[in-house]
Amino acid sequence: MTKLSGWDDTIVAIATPQGVGAIGVIRLSGNKAFEIINHLFPSKDLDHQPTHTLHVGYLKEGDKVLDEVVVSLFKAPKSYTGEDVIEISAHGSPFIHQQIVGACVKEGARLAKPGEFTQRAFLNGKLDLAQAEAVADLIASNTAASQKAALHTIRGGFSANLKDLRDRLLKFSALIELELDFSQEDVEFADRTQFYELINELQYSTSKLINSFQLGNVIRNGVSVAIVGKPNAGKSTLLNNLLNENRAIVSDIPGTTRDTIEEVINIDGILFRLIDTAGIREHTTDVIESAGIERSLEKIKQADLVLYVFDINEGIAELKTWQLQAEKDGVRFLLVANKIDSADEKVAREKFAAFDHIVFISAKNNMHTEVLKEKMVDMILEGKVQPENTIITNARHFHALKEVARSLNDIKEGLDKKIPGDLLALDIRRSLHYLGEITGEITNEDQLDYIFSKFCIGK
Amino acid sequence: MTKLSGWDDTIVAIATPQGVGAIGVIRLSGNKAFEIINHLFPSKDLDHQPTHTLHVGYLKEGDKVLDEVVVSLFKAPKSYTGEDVIEISAHGSPFIHQQIVGACVKEGARLAKPGEFTQRAFLNGKLDLAQAEAVADLIASNTAASQKAALHTIRGGFSANLKDLRDRLLKFSALIELELDFSQEDVEFADRTQFYELINELQYSTSKLINSFQLGNVIRNGVSVAIVGKPNAGKSTLLNNLLNENRAIVSDIPGTTRDTIEEVINIDGILFRLIDTAGIREHTTDVIESAGIERSLEKIKQADLVLYVFDINEGIAELKTWQLQAEKDGVRFLLVANKIDSADEKVAREKFAAFDHIVFISAKNNMHTEVLKEKMVDMILEGKVQPENTIITNARHFHALKEVARSLNDIKEGLDKKIPGDLLALDIRRSLHYLGEITGEITNEDQLDYIFSKFCIGK
Repeated sequence: MTKLSGWDDTIVAIATPQGVGAIGVIRLSGNKAFEIINHLFPSKDLDHQPTHTLHVGYLKEGDKVLDEVVVSLFKAPKSYTGEDVIEISAHGSPFIHQQIVGACVKEGARLAKPGEFTQRAFLNGKLDLAQAEAVADLIASNTAASQKAALHTIRGGFSANLKDLRDRLLKFSALIELELDFSQEDVEFADRTQFYELINELQYSTSKLINSFQLGNVIRNGVSVAIVGKPNAGKSTLLNNLLNENRAIVSDIPGTTRDTIEEVINIDGILFRLIDTAGIREHTTDVIESAGIERSLEKIKQADLVLYVFDINEGIAELKTWQLQAEKDGVRFLLVANKIDSADEKVAREKFAAFDHIVFISAKNNMHTEVLKEKMVDMILEGKVQPENTIITNARHFHALKEVARSLNDIKEGLDKKIPGDLLALDIRRSLHYLGEITGEITNEDQLDYIFSKFCIGK
Repeated sequence: MTKLSGWDDTIVAIATPQGVGAIGVIRLSGNKAFEIINHLFPSKDLDHQPTHTLHVGYLKEGDKVLDEVVVSLFKAPKSYTGEDVIEISAHGSPFIHQQIVGACVKEGARLAKPGEFTQRAFLNGKLDLAQAEAVADLIASNTAASQKAALHTIRGGFSANLKDLRDRLLKFSALIELELDFSQEDVEFADRTQFYELINELQYSTSKLINSFQLGNVIRNGVSVAIVGKPNAGKSTLLNNLLNENRAIVSDIPGTTRDTIEEVINIDGILFRLIDTAGIREHTTDVIESAGIERSLEKIKQADLVLYVFDINEGIAELKTWQLQAEKDGVRFLLVANKIDSADEKVAREKFAAFDHIVFISAKNNMHTEVLKEKMVDMILEGKVQPENTIITNARHFHALKEVARSLNDIKEGLDKKIPGDLLALDIRRSLHYLGEITGEITNEDQLDYIFSKFCIGK
């Protein structure tokens, strides 16, 4: 494992969000953490207190009282980072937090880089790399689904899957490597038929994980939805309807860039991002029809899912044209037959019987909008693995797994062609390498720095 | 002491600032706190763990894992509120924090009102009212001086002053009241000469506290400064100069309304708020002179301190006119003779020898600006108590102390006029009442609700 330069020193950072609150927490980690806190908190010899205990008192810089604080002690290795960790819970003034961090630095601590606490946890073997990355995902989680996926990984679910794949591959790898030592004698320790079966199994597991990424991506980033349709079709009424009931808690995540997203709703734990909704609000009535359609086409290109809203009292010719175009463009869409309140529902359903992916609603009277929401979720989950299993949410893991799949394929081809053991061994090593990259058993400093730089400071 | 209705229940709130960070803390207080955490944190029987200990594990709502958390235990009465307190340190996702608060509410907790934790600390005798109020001041503190004043009060410095005043008054009060029981016999248990001396001493202490309020106000709210002067006098250069070196960390404090303040600098722990500095930046060169002067007059009215910047190469007549007007208006000002680099300093000093409150600088070359800053601080501290002593920063305390001073005056007049003991006793009781109001020995529910409603939630 790579040891990062300088991680013997003690790091400090404010761990709570910026701003005024009731309390704020400053975190110290490293082998000087106790020495530093003993200088700043002289009323008690914290060095001789047991780990996992809390101590109330005044934090001082010389004679000057900085604050009345609660100090939490976590002694190595029983801490988040595996090092000595001190958490100082202070009153919630950013000014005081800065002073406390400053005092720690004067006593020999260094300002932590983003993600450096978690990086140390990884380097000290407290978490593997996939788990460490899931910590950042958990902090950024804003739906039940993203929270669940991140927690599954943090708790080791994903890592256990990978370890299983890796262990089984390693067993055969060892036998193949052994054959190489006896290459003069032309023996086969590794049963080729069994190995072939194993590779088949590994391919199945890997492709299941790879396929979960599409859903993982949805869980992590949400689904962009465009609500399009002609003026007066009821787009803004529908929008308001969806927003009123399902508006999601979405916060800005430092370090990630997002497009300006106007409105985000949460349906069954999946975020739906309604793109360019301002446009919907402004231009529902007074635009020229052709301009409206043109704008719709643009939105359609950006969207993961398109809701085409139309008045059921209209003819079906136009709808058919729209659908044909959408299918030609490979767009995922739902046809939303609106204003069911203004007609006989049964007649309307018969009229549009030829259309798939159609939902009949009344946005005005909030009729059947639950059905629409169910359909929206179905469209996204359709044909994908269910959220009970491990779901890949991280692009790095996805790409590594694709390499694993490629190597497995090469191994299989090699077996088919009965290539010599030494060539087979190379392909197996390649598989093992990419599996190891995910959990961080195989890694390099640049890659780690990149991964952890996307964390927030104090984590 | 008033017992607030409903404070037997258990309250919950997010104690850290809103937003995404490494961690966030959820705080529970009340007699059901342990019952609630035991349901949510089933892996350990926290009820039977010692107070002031930390416990790592999964927080669950039924089977659903909400987060991996650290739980801090503070058993009554050894806690901030004096009740059982649980702090849950979770990953820094606002979504997860909301879920944890929601889970606590489902288990029987109630959302805390602003300041309710501190209110309970007061009601349970952990803090007096002056100390409780200083907690809010400490959280809002953004300079070393405001931090120091708040900490002095939290540590009981101010309360000790008041207790001393009150105890001495009480001793005499008891004797006077005793006299009333023997009123038929016309005895004097309380030595009137000693009492007169005591009242003198109390008046001195009280007036010292009252006088400290002006400084206290400055420490708490800062000093508004207007930089005025003719175009090209060097105002914006001076402004940039001050800003570059002394820009303060100032954060928005929820619940307090502030005027739009463009720039805030911190000199020796005092905040100077530079008002309407945008105006300075924009209109330094191309405005008509008269318009510039008119604007200056407006700024002068708003400011606690006015810096009049002028070019030393100009004549003294205009300066004299400005000074006369400022003195007539009762404005506190400093004359800033700028561009000392462009002239002979000695000659210039002689030229303006007739002026008081003048500082010679070169904003461009950053010459003598330290002297200017010292003078700015001097102008504010001039004739006021020094920050080593107790400083009243709270308007409520100020007004109560004014009432104490008034009662003391009445007592003294009563003694002079040899009024009967029962009338004297009334005045003494009035003094004691107002002293008691500050620390909360005498209080009422409405007043408490008002005081604590200005706190942030979670404190």
